[in-house]
Amino acid sequence: MDTSASLRSAAHDAPEAPATDRRTRHRERRRQEVYAAAVELFVEQGFENTTMEQIAQRADVARATVFNHFERKTAFLDEWMSQRRKRAFAAVLKENLTDWSLDRILRRYMIESARMSEETRAETVALMTAAVHSTDLLAHPVLADEFEPYIVEAQKSGEAPAQMKAGQAGLVVATSYFAVLSQWIAADPAPFDLTTELLAMLDILLSGMLKRP
Amino acid sequence: MDTSASLRSAAHDAPEAPATDRRTRHRERRRQEVYAAAVELFVEQGFENTTMEQIAQRADVARATVFNHFERKTAFLDEWMSQRRKRAFAAVLKENLTDWSLDRILRRYMIESARMSEETRAETVALMTAAVHSTDLLAHPVLADEFEPYIVEAQKSGEAPAQMKAGQAGLVVATSYFAVLSQWIAADPAPFDLTTELLAMLDILLSGMLKRP
Repeated sequence: MDTSASLRSAAHDAPEAPATDRRTRHRERRRQEVYAAAVELFVEQGFENTTMEQIAQRADVARATVFNHFERKTAFLDEWMSQRRKRAFAAVLKENLTDWSLDRILRRYMIESARMSEETRAETVALMTAAVHSTDLLAHPVLADEFEPYIVEAQKSGEAPAQMKAGQAGLVVATSYFAVLSQWIAADPAPFDLTTELLAMLDILLSGMLKRP
Repeated sequence: MDTSASLRSAAHDAPEAPATDRRTRHRERRRQEVYAAAVELFVEQGFENTTMEQIAQRADVARATVFNHFERKTAFLDEWMSQRRKRAFAAVLKENLTDWSLDRILRRYMIESARMSEETRAETVALMTAAVHSTDLLAHPVLADEFEPYIVEAQKSGEAPAQMKAGQAGLVVATSYFAVLSQWIAADPAPFDLTTELLAMLDILLSGMLKRP
């Protein structure tokens, strides 16, 4: 007991809870394998046509293991969207801007999202189409909640009008983004340049549809 | 033959093609009965759980008749949305405004849509939820196309900026409307006053998210 514990601690450099850490890492690795297998299958044969059984086979794990990590098939879509948002926000935050304006943050977000979607068009087509039809993207858009604090910040700094409902503004940006992306994936080949279109959409939202007096 | 033709023409006041007209009217009446039966069933038991067979039974017609009028179950959703749009635009046009501004047209449209949705909440919940998940609402929103000419008109009159893409502005209005409506139907009882929320959303779109200099 003592010996094995000290071996573990030496190997992992985490004397307090080495077994838990390895288990956590192992679990996370397994989860990523299952996730990657699912995304592969969705791209190859579509979300609707893919079963949890097939995902288990592709990942070479038991069916119960798949359910253990992703209790519903739509959980893969939630995970995909979550990873996309994280990467786009990470790109925004990495810039370490000294003058963080809402305008700049949202533009950066759209450029990064467009870049990811263009780099992985087949994956984006398969997963985003499924997300629109099988998750509550419009009724509960997490992206809207994630934009909201930046909008509140812009209201504090005076960039955005104080009377605007930040949650609603976040909703409008998120769903307009989904709409442009949906049109981009609905036609093959891509019907327009995604970055250009997303930035034009953002211009309308930031400046408004009516001329300024 | 002659007698029956003249009776028909007297009764229907359409001497040129009375038989065709009656057939057309009959067909339209039948179509409306099938449509009404379908909507009833969607509200009672949900869109997913309703079959074309059940719709035929409820409308007391043959299954082939249902398919004759609506070749896919989602065609009922297209019809429902089409009727909603027609009624909302009819309310807008009825006003016969002398100074038709885009601002006024869109506000009137939102007020009328909110009124219809509130009057028929159960129907709106059932049909709109199904439309979001089973039709290409985001990728091909007809509502966006129907807003577009009003936006072009506003650009001609100088109300809206000329460089704005009218199609994109229409898309933004249509999908923001779908998003607010989706949130309103996702919680029971209704989580907010729909008219207030739609008009606040429209304010953001018309004035923009950033302060005017």
